[in-house]
Order: sequence, then C-alpha cells, then structure tokens
Amino acid sequence: MSILIRGGTVVTAEGESRADVYCEAGKIVAVGENLEAPAGAEIVDAGGQYVMPGGIDPHTHMQLPFMGTVASEDFYTGTAAAMAGGTTMIIDFVIPNPQQRLMEAYETWMGWAEKSAADYSFHVAVTWWDETVDQDMETLVRDHGVNSFKHFMAYKNAIMADDEILYNSFTKALSLGAIPTCHAENGELVFQLQKKLLAEGITGPEAHPLSRPPAAEGEAANRAIKLAEVIGTPVYLVHVSAEEALDEITRARNEGQRVFGEVLAGHLLIDDSVYRHPDFEFAAAHVMSPPFRPKGHQEALWKGLQSGNLQTTATDHCCFCAEQKAAGKDDFSKIPNGTAGVEDRMAVLWHHGVNTGRLTPSEFVAATSTNAAKIFNIHPRKGSISVGADADIVVWDPAATRTISAKTHHQNIDFNIFEGMEVTGNPSHTISRGVVTYKEGELRAVKGAGRYVDRPPFPTHYEAMKKRAELNKPTAVDRSLSNAAD
Amino acid sequence: MSILIRGGTVVTAEGESRADVYCEAGKIVAVGENLEAPAGAEIVDAGGQYVMPGGIDPHTHMQLPFMGTVASEDFYTGTAAAMAGGTTMIIDFVIPNPQQRLMEAYETWMGWAEKSAADYSFHVAVTWWDETVDQDMETLVRDHGVNSFKHFMAYKNAIMADDEILYNSFTKALSLGAIPTCHAENGELVFQLQKKLLAEGITGPEAHPLSRPPAAEGEAANRAIKLAEVIGTPVYLVHVSAEEALDEITRARNEGQRVFGEVLAGHLLIDDSVYRHPDFEFAAAHVMSPPFRPKGHQEALWKGLQSGNLQTTATDHCCFCAEQKAAGKDDFSKIPNGTAGVEDRMAVLWHHGVNTGRLTPSEFVAATSTNAAKIFNIHPRKGSISVGADADIVVWDPAATRTISAKTHHQNIDFNIFEGMEVTGNPSHTISRGVVTYKEGELRAVKGAGRYVDRPPFPTHYEAMKKRAELNKPTAVDRSLSNAAD
Amino acid sequence: MSILIRGGTVVTAEGESRADVYCEAGKIVAVGENLEAPAGAEIVDAGGQYVMPGGIDPHTHMQLPFMGTVASEDFYTGTAAAMAGGTTMIIDFVIPNPQQRLMEAYETWMGWAEKSAADYSFHVAVTWWDETVDQDMETLVRDHGVNSFKHFMAYKNAIMADDEILYNSFTKALSLGAIPTCHAENGELVFQLQKKLLAEGITGPEAHPLSRPPAAEGEAANRAIKLAEVIGTPVYLVHVSAEEALDEITRARNEGQRVFGEVLAGHLLIDDSVYRHPDFEFAAAHVMSPPFRPKGHQEALWKGLQSGNLQTTATDHCCFCAEQKAAGKDDFSKIPNGTAGVEDRMAVLWHHGVNTGRLTPSEFVAATSTNAAKIFNIHPRKGSISVGADADIVVWDPAATRTISAKTHHQNIDFNIFEGMEVTGNPSHTISRGVVTYKEGELRAVKGAGRYVDRPPFPTHYEAMKKRAELNKPTAVDRSLSNAAD
Amino acid sequence: MSILIRGGTVVTAEGESRADVYCEAGKIVAVGENLEAPAGAEIVDAGGQYVMPGGIDPHTHMQLPFMGTVASEDFYTGTAAAMAGGTTMIIDFVIPNPQQRLMEAYETWMGWAEKSAADYSFHVAVTWWDETVDQDMETLVRDHGVNSFKHFMAYKNAIMADDEILYNSFTKALSLGAIPTCHAENGELVFQLQKKLLAEGITGPEAHPLSRPPAAEGEAANRAIKLAEVIGTPVYLVHVSAEEALDEITRARNEGQRVFGEVLAGHLLIDDSVYRHPDFEFAAAHVMSPPFRPKGHQEALWKGLQSGNLQTTATDHCCFCAEQKAAGKDDFSKIPNGTAGVEDRMAVLWHHGVNTGRLTPSEFVAATSTNAAKIFNIHPRKGSISVGADADIVVWDPAATRTISAKTHHQNIDFNIFEGMEVTGNPSHTISRGVVTYKEGELRAVKGAGRYVDRPPFPTHYEAMKKRAELNKPTAVDRSLSNAAD
Ligand SMILES: [Zn+2]
Ligand SMILES: [Zn+2]
Ligand SMILES: [Zn+2]
Ligand SMILES: [Zn+2]
Ligand SMILES: [Zn+2]
Ligand SMILES: [Zn+2]
Ligand SMILES: [Zn+2]
Ligand SMILES: [Zn+2]
Repeated sequence: MSILIRGGTVVTAEGESRADVYCEAGKIVAVGENLEAPAGAEIVDAGGQYVMPGGIDPHTHMQLPFMGTVASEDFYTGTAAAMAGGTTMIIDFVIPNPQQRLMEAYETWMGWAEKSAADYSFHVAVTWWDETVDQDMETLVRDHGVNSFKHFMAYKNAIMADDEILYNSFTKALSLGAIPTCHAENGELVFQLQKKLLAEGITGPEAHPLSRPPAAEGEAANRAIKLAEVIGTPVYLVHVSAEEALDEITRARNEGQRVFGEVLAGHLLIDDSVYRHPDFEFAAAHVMSPPFRPKGHQEALWKGLQSGNLQTTATDHCCFCAEQKAAGKDDFSKIPNGTAGVEDRMAVLWHHGVNTGRLTPSEFVAATSTNAAKIFNIHPRKGSISVGADADIVVWDPAATRTISAKTHHQNIDFNIFEGMEVTGNPSHTISRGVVTYKEGELRAVKGAGRYVDRPPFPTHYEAMKKRAELNKPTAVDRSLSNAAD
Repeated sequence: MSILIRGGTVVTAEGESRADVYCEAGKIVAVGENLEAPAGAEIVDAGGQYVMPGGIDPHTHMQLPFMGTVASEDFYTGTAAAMAGGTTMIIDFVIPNPQQRLMEAYETWMGWAEKSAADYSFHVAVTWWDETVDQDMETLVRDHGVNSFKHFMAYKNAIMADDEILYNSFTKALSLGAIPTCHAENGELVFQLQKKLLAEGITGPEAHPLSRPPAAEGEAANRAIKLAEVIGTPVYLVHVSAEEALDEITRARNEGQRVFGEVLAGHLLIDDSVYRHPDFEFAAAHVMSPPFRPKGHQEALWKGLQSGNLQTTATDHCCFCAEQKAAGKDDFSKIPNGTAGVEDRMAVLWHHGVNTGRLTPSEFVAATSTNAAKIFNIHPRKGSISVGADADIVVWDPAATRTISAKTHHQNIDFNIFEGMEVTGNPSHTISRGVVTYKEGELRAVKGAGRYVDRPPFPTHYEAMKKRAELNKPTAVDRSLSNAAD
Repeated sequence: MSILIRGGTVVTAEGESRADVYCEAGKIVAVGENLEAPAGAEIVDAGGQYVMPGGIDPHTHMQLPFMGTVASEDFYTGTAAAMAGGTTMIIDFVIPNPQQRLMEAYETWMGWAEKSAADYSFHVAVTWWDETVDQDMETLVRDHGVNSFKHFMAYKNAIMADDEILYNSFTKALSLGAIPTCHAENGELVFQLQKKLLAEGITGPEAHPLSRPPAAEGEAANRAIKLAEVIGTPVYLVHVSAEEALDEITRARNEGQRVFGEVLAGHLLIDDSVYRHPDFEFAAAHVMSPPFRPKGHQEALWKGLQSGNLQTTATDHCCFCAEQKAAGKDDFSKIPNGTAGVEDRMAVLWHHGVNTGRLTPSEFVAATSTNAAKIFNIHPRKGSISVGADADIVVWDPAATRTISAKTHHQNIDFNIFEGMEVTGNPSHTISRGVVTYKEGELRAVKGAGRYVDRPPFPTHYEAMKKRAELNKPTAVDRSLSNAAD
Repeated sequence: MSILIRGGTVVTAEGESRADVYCEAGKIVAVGENLEAPAGAEIVDAGGQYVMPGGIDPHTHMQLPFMGTVASEDFYTGTAAAMAGGTTMIIDFVIPNPQQRLMEAYETWMGWAEKSAADYSFHVAVTWWDETVDQDMETLVRDHGVNSFKHFMAYKNAIMADDEILYNSFTKALSLGAIPTCHAENGELVFQLQKKLLAEGITGPEAHPLSRPPAAEGEAANRAIKLAEVIGTPVYLVHVSAEEALDEITRARNEGQRVFGEVLAGHLLIDDSVYRHPDFEFAAAHVMSPPFRPKGHQEALWKGLQSGNLQTTATDHCCFCAEQKAAGKDDFSKIPNGTAGVEDRMAVLWHHGVNTGRLTPSEFVAATSTNAAKIFNIHPRKGSISVGADADIVVWDPAATRTISAKTHHQNIDFNIFEGMEVTGNPSHTISRGVVTYKEGELRAVKGAGRYVDRPPFPTHYEAMKKRAELNKPTAVDRSLSNAAD
C-alpha cells in the first residue's frame, strides 16, 4: 500500500516548502520535489493545499466513566471523528479509582481502546499513593510505553492528589524519565465554593464558573510549578484556561524552568457568558472544568500560544449528552463535566489562528501536532513530515469552508460548543499510517485500525536536568575538626 | 507624672517638624513649638535628636514552648530589652496545641505576659479546626481585643494548617473583622526535604536552608494570597524572607488586593552562608524559619521596604541558647528554631536604612511602628505622635554609635546574629506610656508595668471590602420560564 | 473671622475620627471633640458628614493659549467652579514658548492668575534649553516658590523636549531640589501617525486616539523613568492614561525608585469609543491628550490608584467650546486638545471610588489632596486637617446626589464629559482659607481672593537620595603604579 | 568532491539521531543510517561525536574602520579563525558614514569581503535618512540579498539614529520584507555621562561601564520594541547585555510580539570587574559596547537563552590590539570599542551551556546556528543538517579539551577575553560547503573560498503580520449625515 501526495506545500514546525510526499507501508519514505509514483500508488493531488503532520490531540477522554455516567463517545467513534477533522492520534487518560492498582486500570483502558480507528496512547493518572503505585509507575514506563502521569489537583474527596501525593509521584516520575502532568485547580477552594453557592441557592450552571474562579487555577498552577522546581522535574499543565495560570507558566519559563502548557480550542474562543444562558441545556452543555472564562482570558491565551508559553492545543474531549447533563438539573455540581471538540480543534485553530495572522502555518503545526510529539517523546515518529516518520498526514485546504454544527459533525454527542461557527481551512484528506481515512467529506475510518503508541522515557532534556542537578547537589559541611575542638 | 520632650525634631510617618511634645498620665497632650513645662514635669532635652513613636515589634515569641524546650527570653526580660532599643510594644503569639481550646491557650499566655515591662498584645494561632475554634475566635475578637489570627503553613504533623483550615479560619476572621496572618512555607515540601537530606547524610545546620528553599516560601505565599483573594479578606504574611514571596505580595498589591508583608531585621542583613560555618554553635544559632537566604534576597527585601510592598519590620524574637540548640547536634531538624533581635531591630534598620538613604526618617517610622499600628488597628493610639496618643516615644540620637554584641545586649540569650555590627543611630531615651524606661544606657524597665492592648476589629478598609463584595455578589439565573418550556 | 465645623467625621489620609474643627484667620487652630465656638464664630453643622482637606487639583490649564486659541475658562471662573466641587487649590502650568525666557512667561501667568478665587501655584515648563533656562530655573526655585518643572515629550516641532533637554533639565531640577514632571508620549510617533492617518483620509476625531496609541505613552513613560533613574532624581508623570505607562511606573516603584503618577478623573471612567461618535461636536469635545483609552485601561488605572502606584488625581482642566473645537473639523490634529473637569473630579472619584469599595474615605483624601501636597512639598500646610494648616476644607455629604451636566455646572464650557452621570457624595460646604466659598448649592467664590502658594524645594526624600548617590559615587582607579611599570 | 561523515550523532534544533551524512558538491545529499560512501569520497569518522550545523555568527565586524583606526582582523583571518572554532558563516555589517550612499558603502564592504574563507552576508546600517537611503534600501533587498538593516541608537554626533530615522527605516524595512535590528543604548545618556565622568576626572576604562549603565540599554531596547509594535514590524536587538534589555524583550514576546534578541558569548561569562583592573591594557582590552555588566546579569542572560527569549548567540567580533586601544589612555571614550571571540563562541557556549545542563545539544544548535538562519531567512539552506542544505557542518567532540589563549588562538589580535578558560567540547572537523577546512588542530581555510549568501526577504511570519495589520486597519467614521444635520 503506497501513496503519493503531490503538488502541495509541505508545512512542518520548521518551515514551508514545495514538495511531494511518498509513503509506503505506513511510513513516509520520501519527501522531495517531483517524486515519481510507483505503479499502483494512490495519488493525492494536493495542488494549492498544505501537507502537514496529522494532528495530535494530547487530551481526550473516550468512554470515560465519570460522575455516575459514561462518556458517550467511545474510542472508535471518537477517533473516527478526530480523523474527519485532521487529527490522527490521541493521548487519552487511564484514571484509576483511589486504591485501584494502576496496572489494573491500565489494562481496562487498553481493552476499551482496541477499537480505536486512529493511533492512541495513555497518560496514567496517579490518584492515590502507596508502594504499589510506585511499582506500577515503574512497570508502566519500563514495559508499557507510558511516559507521562496525570494528577488532579481538584475533585476533593474523589481523585484529588494532595501535596504529598504530588511530591511522591513527581519524584518517582523524574527518576523514570516520565513527565508529570496536572489538572491545576485548588480542590479545596472548589469544594468550599460549591458548598457555599448551593447554600446560597445558586444551583444552576451559572454557579459552575463561580465555584472555580481563575484564582483557584492560578494557585494550583503555581503550586505544581514550584513543586516541580524544587524536585527538579519538568511539568506539563493540561487545559490552561485562565490568564492567572498562564502567567505562572510564563514566569517559570522566563526563568528557564522546563514547564509546558496546553490550551483547549474551547478556552481560546468561548467565554463564561454561556453559563448564564436561560436555557439549562445550553448552559449545562458547556459545563467542563476548568470552565470557560470571562472575556479577556481568551486573548491572553492566544498570546500564550503566539509567544510559545503554551505549546500544545487539545480538546479534553469528553462527551455527555443532554440527558446525562440533566443529572445536575437541580445541583450544578452534579452536571457531568465535559465538552466535545476532537473533530473541530484543527479547523478552529486554523481559522482563528492562521487566518487572523496570529500564527503562521508552521506555528499551527507546532501547536497542533509537533510540540505534543516532542514533549511526549514520540517525535519525529509523530508530528513530523520526514523520512522514517509514521505516515500520519493531513492535506489541508485553506480555502475550504465549513459551518460547524452538531447536526453534521461526526462526534457522538448532541451538542457542539462551536455551533454555527464558519471556519475557512479544513482537511481535504486525512492519512493515518499511510491510509486515507478521510477524503473530501467521506469518512473511511476503520474500527480497530489504530495502534497503541509506545512513548519512550527520558527525552533529551532529562540529561540536561540531570547535569544541572549534579552541579547543584547539596553537600554536607565537615565539622569534625571544629566540633572536636568544642 | 508629666514629661516634656524639648527641642527635638518630631518625625512621624507623615513628615518631620520641629516641635516639643508634652505628656501627662501616659498620654501625649500637646505637640507644638515652645511648649511650657508645668512645674514638676520631667524635661527631656532632645536637641539635635529625633522624637519618634516608640517601635512596635509585631512578631515576637517570649518564653515560647517549642520543639521540646522553652524560649529563654521571658516577657519581662524581652520587653525590657526591647525598650533598650526603642521598642515600646510587642505583639506576641498565642499558639494552641492542636485540639487545645484557643481560649485556654489565650489565658495561659495572658498569664505569662503579666510581667511584661512594655505594652503587648497577642495574635492567636489557628492550628486546627472544629466548632469550638470557630466559637473561640468569636469570643477572642468580641471580648478580648484580638483582631488577628495566625496560621502556620509549615510544621507538618504538628501545627500546620492545611487549605481546609485556612479556608475556614480566613472566612471566619473576615466575618469578625479580624485579619488572618500566615507563616508561609509549604510544609509538605519542608517535610520531604528534611527526610531526603537526613537520608543523604546531610545532618548539620547547612541542611536547614536546603530543606526550606525560597520556592517553598513563594508557593505558600501565593497560596495564602489566592485564598484571601477568593474569600475576599485582607491577609498579612509574617517574616517574608525570600524574593519569591515578596514577588507574590507585590503582584497582588499591584492588582489592588489588600495584602501586607512583614520583614525581619535579620532577613534584611544576613545571608545563608552562616549555615556553612564550620562551628556548629555559630551555625545553629542562626537556625530559624524561614532561614536566612542566599545573597541577593536581602537587596530585594530592602526594595520591598522602600517600595512599600513590605509595610512592617519585626524580629520573630525567639531565643534559644547554645545548650538548647545542641539538641539538633546530629539532626538539624531538631535544632530549636529561633533567633533574637527585639533590642536591635530599630538601630539596625536606621543604620542600614536611613543612613544609606534607602529610607527617609518618616519611612523608618512607618516601617518600625506606624504601619503595624494601622494594620492591627491601634492607630493613632499607637504608632503616632499626636494629641491623645499613648506616650510611647523614642528619642533618637542619629549620631550615637554602638557596636552590637551578645556581651553587652540586654536580651536573655548568649548569641547575637548582628554581633560586631557598628550602628550609628540609637535611642537616647525610650518612653513608655509617659515614663522614661531607658535613658542613655540606663535601663529602667519595670516588671509588670506593661499593659495588654485591646485591638478592635474592623479597620476601615473592611467597609470598603464589604462594598466591593456586595457589588460582585453572585446571583442566580432564573430559568423557571425557559425550563418550563422544555 | 472664625468658623467651627461641628459634629462631623474628620477624614485624613491617616484615618477617620469624630472631631470638630475650629478655624481662625484662615488657619485651623483646633481639632478635637466638643470644641467650644467663640461668640461670633460661624457654625457649620457637619452632622453625618465627612470633614476633609479641600481638594488639590495638581493639573489645570486656565486661560491657556494653545493651538491658535485660548482656553475659555479663566483663573476666576475655573477656581470658582473648582470650589463648587470641593477643590480649594490648583496647580496650573506656565508654558513658555521655545526661546521665551521662563521668567517672562512666569510673570505673564502670575498676572493672569491674580483673579483666582482659590489658592494656586505653578509648575513651569521647560520647552527649550540654553543657559538662561538654567538660570531662570534657579531663580524660580530660589525666589518664587516653584519646585516642579514640566516637560512635554510630545508636540514635535512645538514644545517637545528631546532627550538632551530632558537630561539637562532633570539634572538641574535635582540640584535645586525641584521635581521634574512629564507629559509622556513619544512625540515622533504621534507626529508620524498623524501624517499617516491624514494621508489615508482618516481626518475625523476617530484618528485622534489612533495617532496616540498606548504604546507611545508607555515608551515615553519608560524613557522618562530611566532618565530619572540614571540621573538619580524623582520624577512625576502627569495624566497617566494607559496601562502601559502605569506598568512602567509600577515596575520602577517596585524597585524602590521614587516615581509618582497622576491620573485624571476622565481617564478612569471614559473609554475611546467616544471618538467614533457620529456627531463631530461630541467626538471633538473629547479630544485631549493622551486620549481616552480602550476599555480595560480604566480598570487598570483604578488598580493603580488602589495599589498606590498612582498617587494623585487631577483633571488637566483645559476648556475649549464647540466653536473652538471646530477648527479641526477637517483635520483632527487641529482640534484644540482639552477637556474640563475641575468641578467634578471629587464627586466622580467618590462615587466610583468610595461607593464601590475601591477606596476608603482616607484613601480618597490621599488621592484627591494629601498626596499632591506631599509630593509638591506643601504638606501639612495643604492637604491636611491639623492644627496650623490652612483652613482649606470640604464638608462632604455622602448622601447628596447630583446629576452632572453642562447645563448646570459652573465651568465655563459648553460640554461635560461626565454628562448625565449621577453621583452620590458631594460637597455641602467648601471652605477656602477659613471662608465658606460654597454652601449647599450656593457658590460664593470671590474674584482675587486666592493667593499664590510658595512651594519650597527639597522635600525630605531628597536627603535620602543624596545619601544614596554618595554611597554609589563613581571612583577612579589609580593606575599610576601599574602604568609606570609599562 | 564528496564526503561522508560516519558514525556520529546528528544533532539539529529538532533533536538527536544516529545517522551518517553524505555531501556532494557542497550540498548535503543524504542523511541516514549506514550510508555507503562512493569511491573517492572522503570519510570522516565521527564515532562518539556530534554532527551539527556549522555555527553562524550573526554579528561580526571584520576590518571595520572605527574610531580612527581599523579592526586588525580582516575577512580572511577572521573567517579562518571562525572555522577553527566550528563557525562556518558570518553576517557582518556595512556601516555607511552619514551622508554616504548605502550602495557605495555596500560595494566597499563587498570588495573587502572577497577574501573570506567562509560564507558571509551583510546587515546594512541606516545611519542617516533621505530619499536616497529609501531607494538604496529597496535596491539592496531587491537586487543584493540584504534582508536586515541595522540601527545604532548610541554614538551621538556620529552614526546614531534618532526616533525619526528609526521610524522611517523600520517602516521601509517592513514594506520590503526586511528586518530592522538595533544596537540599543540611549546615546544621549551615554554622551552626557561620558562628559560628566571626564569632568569628574574619571578617565580610565573603569568609566566605560559607568557611562553606559544597564538602564540606558533597557531604555533603548524598550523604545525600539515600542516603535516596532506601533509600526507592526518584527525587530531584532543585537548584543543584549543587560537584564533590563532582556526584560523588555521578554515582556514583548510574552505579549506575542515578534521580537528577537542576540547575546554575545562574552556577556554570558564576563562581568564588569575587568574594567577596574589595575593594568590599563587589560582593562582597555575589554572595552566594548555595551560593556560587560555587573555580576547577576550573566545568569539572567543564560536564563534568557534557556527560555528562548534570546534566540541567537554572536560575538560582535571586532579586534583592536593594545597599541590601538592605547589611543584612549587618557580618555576612556577614545578607546576603540571591540573584543574578539568568533573562534571561541561555540566552545564557550558548549562548555558553559551544555556541560552545565543549561542547554541540550539541540538547544545549543538552535542558539549557535539554526535560529540565526531562520530569523535571517536562509533556513534550511543554512543552520540545518538536511538534504539540500549547504554542507556547512561541524563535527563536535564533546570530550576534547582546550585552554583558550591569545598565544594559541587563530584570531588576529593580541588578547583573548576568555584567556585561561578550559573548555571541554570542541570541533574535531569543520566542513564548509562540503570541504574540510579544519581538522583536529589543522586549519585549512582557503582565502576567497567563502561566498556571499543572498538572504531573501519576507520570511513567513511577514504574511501573518500582514493579515494581523489588515484586521486592525484603522477606518474613518462617516459623519456626512450627522454633520449635514448641523
Ligand atoms: Zn481536567
Ligand atoms: Zn481531562
Ligand atoms: Zn514563623
Ligand atoms: Zn514566629
Ligand atoms: Zn499633557
Ligand atoms: Zn496638561
Ligand atoms: Zn553594537
Ligand atoms: Zn557590533
């Protein structure tokens, strides 16, 4: 099975050039001008289009059991929808219950994911701590291609990690060459504010953002960063939604600390006025954490992306339909948290990022694919158009226009937070491991075609951090002589 | 008993002017040029000298039971030493054990303090939480003149307050018109680093600063500030020692948040090289928390004081002699934490602050007295030279030179962290409630002459904060109509 | 002539207290509870009201000749209007033409000001440089009570001061104990953008803010501050309108630099949408420099005031009526720059500052009066309620409500930028040097009753700065020995 | 002529991989594992070594006529020395005298550069302004491969560009797709401080840093950045030496502005104590502008490099020998400004950057080569190891140790600012356009072998900036109707 993409402009995080791309057996085998197609090769005409690495969504939750229900999107439907939007890999989350062995949870999720149409990998959450967690982290890294561990700083009395868990897990992850990631919100504050708002009779979705103020996110972001600084580990903050959290990342990065930040397409474009919508269904459909933020935060996040202080874009794709959301009709804190987006992320980013001049096409590629691949140490296998890389490619038509709608999207959810948004710039072809899975409106995703992607530990900056730590290693003072003199 | 201070330059936080000051019955009754002394009035000739409000040290620990021993300085010796240095009031700390009723601890400390030579008051620590703590806070504010509550964010497994306690206590304090104060260090980090360093065989005092890095202080400072922001209360950070913590205060203040910071004389002048001194006694004598910081932090703290981002200066006066410090000979974490300074604070501040041009005399007065009086709501009774104020006055000789030494100081401790420092600018007379208690080298402090100072709640900015909170009060969305339509 | 203000709450920058205030011969002679009024004393009943220092507007331009016309408000009408609003002193500007002797201009303005109803003083602008300017600065400070010099960094080809003039004048001012002040906008940028916009056919008032972007103000603010830092002088920035300029002040102050910032009532409340109003007269009436700024800047300025990074509030009161503004009908750069406000500043500040909880009454007093008095070294004679101070007092009724309108204001201009704003909190009585000049709607201002206020040089922080400079004085390296060896 | 580099680890800005590199006719034609060498190909054994893009020094001044003398290093000796250190391309400066046609100066420098051993290109300085400058800029970009223009904000009364020149030149450069670059120091301040210091009798090299304080650099950096922001152009600041200037860059970048910063190897490692050395020759040998900075700035600059706020490293290589420096024996302002370094930059960066863990090898490549290539739009032809790129390669032996010394260096100057520094990590081979020009201590540079490198205008972010500008384009308000109504 071979395929030649002809006549396009190849865009990578490094730059643009006119080149053809030839793939065989799921790999890119040639990039250059005027490549010859072997007989039988499928030809994709990319004239006037961009040829880019397929998108990587580093934050999804397919079929997640959460808040008493299960996300409506499964690994097949979700990855298929992803490919309709140009995304060819997801990194999902294994979330053990407290006291559940990590390995057990991992195996459960691996089973669910077998039906994936696109490639996938897993962050594993550390939601509690004992000796077995320590052991399982080691096993996961050594034997199962996991190189990132997730920590929820919110969700008190459930999966929240306190400072002790964070310290232990960050320290262990560092030793394994894996990166800790955090959902940064102060869980105590959220818990108290939820109680307070309910007590005051503010029970609707409008209470959701009030219970999770930007300051709570800024606090947790800073705490995670400071712990990482002291421990000497890199750290990655998921779904940065508030200027306050971005400011913490920016401050740390400016000091040379290796801190990474992810931003969701939704947080870049939607503000918190949605929660005061008179229709409960509409308002509840937007309930996710962190919530959409007051006007002003969106522009700050865009600047974070432009400046490189935020490196990746994701969706936190986690679908709950109206009837599921209705569980919180009388108590906002019971509305299942989550919104969709895996299908729309790239088009939304292109339209509002590239078409407005905020980002160059290369910066778009970095933000939607390459940076995630680098941070999670699967570059250049993923996130690159280069010889030897997996043939995960999107052919992008900058002139193609589409109006986003739940009526037409492929996602398995009855709502779209970008409903009615007209976006110019959409995929014409999505290619996954050398196979065209989406072509000009036609989705050809194959259940189970996706494969698990091993992510090796110890990206190169761990070596640098190790040198740095050795230089700054604490030493004891020898007081044997002066003490003897006492 | 009346006294006339003649011929000096009166310095207040507001400015300087040539004026005499006349006091009767412990109060200032006239301030003006060429005042007449009634017959029998004591005359203090302040020609060429400054007449300033007596110093207020808002952070001392007289005879504190701590880490298995008791501080060597009691309320009498400590307040006497204070007056030798121009300080006429202290605010000490009531520190209940976890599970101990606050009222019980308060009564204990009140008993100890009866022998004070100078006026005193108490911050009360909240080291645990249940309904009785809530009640006792109310009683203390309503009936006992307490308007500030202290929280230790360090000292895990002992008196550390976690976020839940902080939330409850801050919220209660706000409702009472009292201000929460914090010792800001991340106790989990300190706990873990202590374990790690001991495990690595770094057991001497040099491990003390390594176990309490600036980042741990910065983290806690930010957490306290963000909690205060969300709750809508002012907050006061004690002994800001690290640039990281100052930066958090500065950032919050620049946003208009009512955050206050205190700096110790020691942190302004001493760096962390003391902990690597070959002599254990010398190194251990400097063990206090937060520790002295690497060079560079001192200059940052001075700028904090100059800019007004730090408002008060204190000492955290807490004396342990060499034999007490020896408890940590083999384990730095067992060295009783504390250093002295209540006698030297003002001279050290004047010498390094005013003589170097960092501060004007008025700014010196603000930083050593007036700001503390304002924040703790006893101004203009304290911290001011005005008619009706308590006659707590220091006559300051800007030309008087002294070399600080444990051999000559009045403090009940065998060590002085400022040993050998020559300071120009010292008190010639200290007057406490209208009585000369120190005169040109002669200390006349009287045991038990000091009185407890009631501090009323609700300084005026609470009214402003209340208006602000009302304007930003959350409201519910009425969905009865739209929901009905479903 | 004596007057007793009875039953009010005295508010100063230091705090609030219940006290009566008694004045004689234009001075405050007693402040205290239950004062007795001598026979014949006028009694002002201040029950339920605040008694505060009269406002000081440190930035006005009465009858200024500017852009081919003359401001419509003269020293009499302007100061009368000021007193109707509770302001009892203005500091206006002497602005010599380039090549005009400063002394000559000073005498001209002194002549115009003789008819003032309220006290006044003058900043003198340095718009060019030669030896006579140097001499006249000295004369003005030594013999004429001037202690501040103004510099326009905008208005290229007119009164703009380039870096050479700034350097010379700042240096001279420092040596005289006077403070340099700056209108901070990059004049080159403004000049070029005006040309560009006119060339593009954008000729209406909407071009005004486009020609003076916030970045141009930020640039100049930083330049002035850096020059001041290197020269070692305090500096005062007038009419800070943009967050960018505030950020520069904040940054410098956080470093301990003595930088002061003034904000106008208009900039706190009005945004730049006014310039796109379809009615030319309305839009042009708002043309002043710096212009009103995009939404968002207003909140930043409020925070500057709350944090103390901005110390003073002013108006830049400079009145041009519609027919004068019409000079720029076809070319926005010819619209005379200026808006009114001297009458409304205090009520606007109270309503939007105190009533919203942004400021306490004491902070209001600092921002409207005391801080200006301190910076310009006339405190405590002005800006204070204390024995010996000038009896410039406003009795403030926090419940009095008024709707601002050009139809009812006392200002000599046909427009009011606050038109229709309802403000709660207004003066009931204004007292100037012990005489009631405004009483419950009745204006009793007397032409020529105002007196020139001498402002002495060398406020106390100059002594501190001098000490600092001496400590950091550069020294030569003696290379005589090593050079001899060559 | 072909060459195969075998067995090394290829390091690019993107990452590391084991690969061979094969070059023919001056180009890289294959990168991959186990490449076959054609007969006759030269084989370079890179076992255990790194294979990286040759260094690009974007800031040199070969044989510059300056301050009455001419730099001792010519284009041949300088580029040869560069290659001994692993640098294969320089970008030098054409600096016209005021009133000299740019084209004329360009031709002069092009003549001098013909003897270059390595590839070269030219920034052209804009030191004055009239219509011919405008025309020549256009000619240079269109016909001569120039895409960057330099501006000196210092050197008053000589080549200093004032704001008017900056505005005109930045605007023109933007329209041409070229980038403005700036030497950022406030020339007025430097001029005044030089006068002042000389007048005070401080005439030695110790006066040099005193006359050029960090604040003067910070001021100019901010001014250049603000002008660029308003005009809408990218801007590049050369030789950022002071934390103050870095802070301005950081601030702008965090806002998403396209600002670039260059740092010199010397500024990263040397502090200003050198200027107080008792030996004039030693002190004078360090005189360059901006000067070496007080301790503390170096660490800040490293953090700038680590964070990516500084992108490029250079040397400002400009050699003057002791007898030339002696011109300023009695007047520091006459010491020719300049230091060497083109040979040592890469080893110094590797040793202090990579060996200390501040930078990964990939980050080193970015900072020494790739980023310069990208900013000056010659990537991937330069600064990359990829098929089609120029075969400018350095084989880097991380274990090779060398002690830097003027006695052994190849630079044509009698002094080395890094004298005595032992560096581990040095080139074993330098390859320039496919030819080995340096091999294990043997320098084989060929006079005249270097070629001029055309740099095309309009790197891709110009397209983004154009889109952004269009979105924010000012528009006129149509007042025809409302005006008609008047
Ligand atoms: Zn999350
Ligand atoms: Zn998630
Ligand atoms: Zn403490
Ligand atoms: Zn303490
Ligand atoms: Zn102005
Ligand atoms: Zn003005
Ligand atoms: Zn230069
Ligand atoms: Zn140069």
